[in-house]
Amino acid sequence: MKINGVEIEDTFAEAFPIKIARVLVTAMTERWAVAAAREATGFGTSVIGCPAEAGIECVASAKETPDGRPGVYIQICNMGYKNLEMSVLNRIGQCILTAPTTAAFNGLPKAEKQFDTGKKLSFFGDGFQAMVECEGRKIWRIPIMSGAFQVEETIGAVDGIAGGNFYILAQNQAAALTAAEVAVDEIGKLQGTITPFPGGVVASGSKVGSKYKFLKASTNQAFCPTLREGGVCTLPEDVTAGYEIVINGVSREAIEEAMRAGIMAACTVPGVIKISAGNFGGKLGPHQFHLQKILG
Amino acid sequence: MKINGVEIEDTFAEAFPIKIARVLVTAMTERWAVAAAREATGFGTSVIGCPAEAGIECVASAKETPDGRPGVYIQICNMGYKNLEMSVLNRIGQCILTAPTTAAFNGLPKAEKQFDTGKKLSFFGDGFQAMVECEGRKIWRIPIMSGAFQVEETIGAVDGIAGGNFYILAQNQAAALTAAEVAVDEIGKLQGTITPFPGGVVASGSKVGSKYKFLKASTNQAFCPTLREGGVCTLPEDVTAGYEIVINGVSREAIEEAMRAGIMAACTVPGVIKISAGNFGGKLGPHQFHLQKILG
Amino acid sequence: MKINGVEIEDTFAEAFPIKIARVLVTAMTERWAVAAAREATGFGTSVIGCPAEAGIECVASAKETPDGRPGVYIQICNMGYKNLEMSVLNRIGQCILTAPTTAAFNGLPKAEKQFDTGKKLSFFGDGFQAMVECEGRKIWRIPIMSGAFQVEETIGAVDGIAGGNFYILAQNQAAALTAAEVAVDEIGKLQGTITPFPGGVVASGSKVGSKYKFLKASTNQAFCPTLREGGVCTLPEDVTAGYEIVINGVSREAIEEAMRAGIMAACTVPGVIKISAGNFGGKLGPHQFHLQKILG
Amino acid sequence: MKINGVEIEDTFAEAFPIKIARVLVTAMTERWAVAAAREATGFGTSVIGCPAEAGIECVASAKETPDGRPGVYIQICNMGYKNLEMSVLNRIGQCILTAPTTAAFNGLPKAEKQFDTGKKLSFFGDGFQAMVECEGRKIWRIPIMSGAFQVEETIGAVDGIAGGNFYILAQNQAAALTAAEVAVDEIGKLQGTITPFPGGVVASGSKVGSKYKFLKASTNQAFCPTLREGGVCTLPEDVTAGYEIVINGVSREAIEEAMRAGIMAACTVPGVIKISAGNFGGKLGPHQFHLQKILG
Repeated sequence: MKINGVEIEDTFAEAFPIKIARVLVTAMTERWAVAAAREATGFGTSVIGCPAEAGIECVASAKETPDGRPGVYIQICNMGYKNLEMSVLNRIGQCILTAPTTAAFNGLPKAEKQFDTGKKLSFFGDGFQAMVECEGRKIWRIPIMSGAFQVEETIGAVDGIAGGNFYILAQNQAAALTAAEVAVDEIGKLQGTITPFPGGVVASGSKVGSKYKFLKASTNQAFCPTLREGGVCTLPEDVTAGYEIVINGVSREAIEEAMRAGIMAACTVPGVIKISAGNFGGKLGPHQFHLQKILG
Repeated sequence: MKINGVEIEDTFAEAFPIKIARVLVTAMTERWAVAAAREATGFGTSVIGCPAEAGIECVASAKETPDGRPGVYIQICNMGYKNLEMSVLNRIGQCILTAPTTAAFNGLPKAEKQFDTGKKLSFFGDGFQAMVECEGRKIWRIPIMSGAFQVEETIGAVDGIAGGNFYILAQNQAAALTAAEVAVDEIGKLQGTITPFPGGVVASGSKVGSKYKFLKASTNQAFCPTLREGGVCTLPEDVTAGYEIVINGVSREAIEEAMRAGIMAACTVPGVIKISAGNFGGKLGPHQFHLQKILG
Repeated sequence: MKINGVEIEDTFAEAFPIKIARVLVTAMTERWAVAAAREATGFGTSVIGCPAEAGIECVASAKETPDGRPGVYIQICNMGYKNLEMSVLNRIGQCILTAPTTAAFNGLPKAEKQFDTGKKLSFFGDGFQAMVECEGRKIWRIPIMSGAFQVEETIGAVDGIAGGNFYILAQNQAAALTAAEVAVDEIGKLQGTITPFPGGVVASGSKVGSKYKFLKASTNQAFCPTLREGGVCTLPEDVTAGYEIVINGVSREAIEEAMRAGIMAACTVPGVIKISAGNFGGKLGPHQFHLQKILG
Repeated sequence: MKINGVEIEDTFAEAFPIKIARVLVTAMTERWAVAAAREATGFGTSVIGCPAEAGIECVASAKETPDGRPGVYIQICNMGYKNLEMSVLNRIGQCILTAPTTAAFNGLPKAEKQFDTGKKLSFFGDGFQAMVECEGRKIWRIPIMSGAFQVEETIGAVDGIAGGNFYILAQNQAAALTAAEVAVDEIGKLQGTITPFPGGVVASGSKVGSKYKFLKASTNQAFCPTLREGGVCTLPEDVTAGYEIVINGVSREAIEEAMRAGIMAACTVPGVIKISAGNFGGKLGPHQFHLQKILG
């Protein structure tokens, strides 16, 4: 299968279950909503070494939000609901409550699982906090130096999927990275998914395990273009660089749509040679996303 | 004391000792160096609820960096060297090693304290890592999908100061926030300091302690403009919003220079009424920064 | 009428007929499409002293564009079709053809009026240009240093409206300007309109004519908050700054939708006191947009 | 000569004399200074088809500017002083006076040639304008809706050079363009030069003249990688894309420094094969910049 001259390998992405909370962060301007969301979702690439996985999902226009102000949806992900609840509390409390002009609304109001994050945060008000009802939402108002921080009583979470992925293999770093940028930009216009790595891109695609027993993950040498000697690297000869796009999402469908939009966009960049994906014989997880089926 | 019509209160900022590591992150473009640095310094506003405090210090032009590429300096801060070492290892490992085209160099090569972060990260190479010497620096090259990640053998750290601060009190949120933006922009052109909060700004200046025993910090009601009733808020009548700029730095001098540049810039914005600062009777820490002395 | 506590004055915006061409600019990345579009629409605020009025309308996602790449729609406006044709030719020729990786497609393929801009530009190929048909579009391919520039044979234009407007009057500059930013951001998500002034905002709302005979337009003193003495300024006492949002659009409906979205967003910013609009007894033009009707 | 493995061709850039005015634009925030400067320097790539050449030179920190606010230096260039004076008047009048919170100061106060731009613009005040002296500068204050626009009485201009240039030839578009981006970023940190094309980059390097008599410039077919047949293109086989960086500057030294910084930075990007430059047997102009001398 080829798209725009780029080979789509007959392979699949292997992914694993994760719990995902979703928050709508609004602010006086879109710029400040994004600034708050970036801080709240930083240090959030992989649960291997970060306290959570997190990212900005997409922008919400002013007319979609409960307070009529511009906003962004963010996702925070962790391996169990207990850890996730703590992550949501800390990230909203340290990075959204503290950010200028923000409010935090429930991004999954219909989810069965609801954390009482807003209630817990309200104690920061030191007795001056108050609850108001607004179009069916219970909102805590916490007096702060810049006015009042508003946070919804509960934040919803669902069973989602982490580690959806594809690889962009190219003639050189600039071509692979430009294609990755284009893919991430397009995925960023869709609802339901995040690309949690820096700027949405992974430079160091890994394999599960290592020759060193203390490491859970290590470099995936078969995909390392500098390791041609002895046939360690099995990439096509003309590939000198590859990037991975890792996608977390609230549903299988959301991840498939993101993979489709991202791969189609990546294939418009000259110098891209092949699209592949990462799988590990089931060691990573039970979910499979077959590239050619998604694009078919 | 008045600057440009804005009252500078006769008060001081109270700050506390912290350990600070400094890393120079380079990349193929400044844009990608910034993207990596943002991820690595995210979820890093306050050690109260974040695993570290962290921020981008300033941009480094291509001719200043060891590899001739554009870069940014970042700071990572924690309460002890042991915690800090772990923070540096995790944040570089999860957010810089994984970021496209980056390298990580020692930002404090002359510091006495040196963490062997590069050496530890090199094991990700799973046996394919190699050390090279380059202009007196020991650099690990770790093969990855996009080429090779370069990281210096050690990352230096020093005894620094956290919590340097000033308050911008204004007629309304937009004036206070615009002044805060201008202040943060100017501080971002200086070396040695970071403003770790979202976009460099704190919306919810806090006091030490709370009526709730389980809380270490809570809203500073005397500075909350919505709490006029009963005289809880002691701000001037015409102030309806305030923001705090919190500054961490590698030295007392660096923080003083940042406070001076930030306050001078903030005072050019119409609608700013008063500059104040936060102090807590020594409960927060031993360092004091007197506004009028710094600006005198 | 009040929205969120902000008074909506019972007045109207006066606007005038203009000719509008619309171009879809695509590029390898959205960032480069925007860079090209900015250059092409610069020095394009008012036909009083600029060779055309121009602006970026909105972003087009990769899946909407003829070449599957990210893009932006731009509008170029002038007083007659002859001047407009020259403006389109020069701005595409100097600022899109010269920009990295761009292509230029007809943004109004169904308009009756079509300029043969692509054909004229094709001569830059100095004999090496070639025409291809692609999904019903006639596309010129012009060999250049970076590959080939693609431009559609014709660019369409319609009778549109210029000078749709509203005023944001506020407590201070920062509040008025933040509200203007929010309004422009929201208008930028809609199709069919542009806000041609710098960053979408006019600081110096003018009246038609002047006491100096050589000037077509001069400051609108009744709206100048520094001219309180002698009652020159007729603004409410607490207003110290106002900005105007000027909107051009391909239809009356598009301008009304933009005014509605922009005003609603502006009214969420604290410190905004009143929304007004500019009219000049018919000296500017025949179109009227009544604020309260649009928002009713 | 090779830099970082990239061949530096033994050739030179041919450039021509131009007149350059320089303006310091300040605003309430750096962001708004940049927005105003972008509008004022747009549609300003080449005097072949634009009313002037123009660009942003570099950022000025708040402590360097006459009003203590952040700013940017811009350059406006034209073939004679008379045309230049008109360009400066129109671009400041239409794009800086109209932009929110800006002021315009003389960027070349010591130049012999001084235009009375500020005086001419002051008539927009319709009788309400006033002149003040401030640290030896004569400043006009013009009342406008958002407060007062300040513009210095005169704007200085000098004999400068246009068309300084180098070519970045690479394996593909993404590598050439990423190198161009890095080069432009570094040049943007220097004083005295601008890169007037879109995002600083030229995609369609031209030759002087054409087979069509009505064209002053046309595609430089010897540098067009798609024209391999019949040996029209004389680029190395592995080059599939090239970009040109065009540099205008106030002095020969400024252009040499910019070329050096830009080329050094471009040579760090993998996939870049060769650096060349454009010259036309003296048909373009008398100035020559030899690559190897500048880099030696």
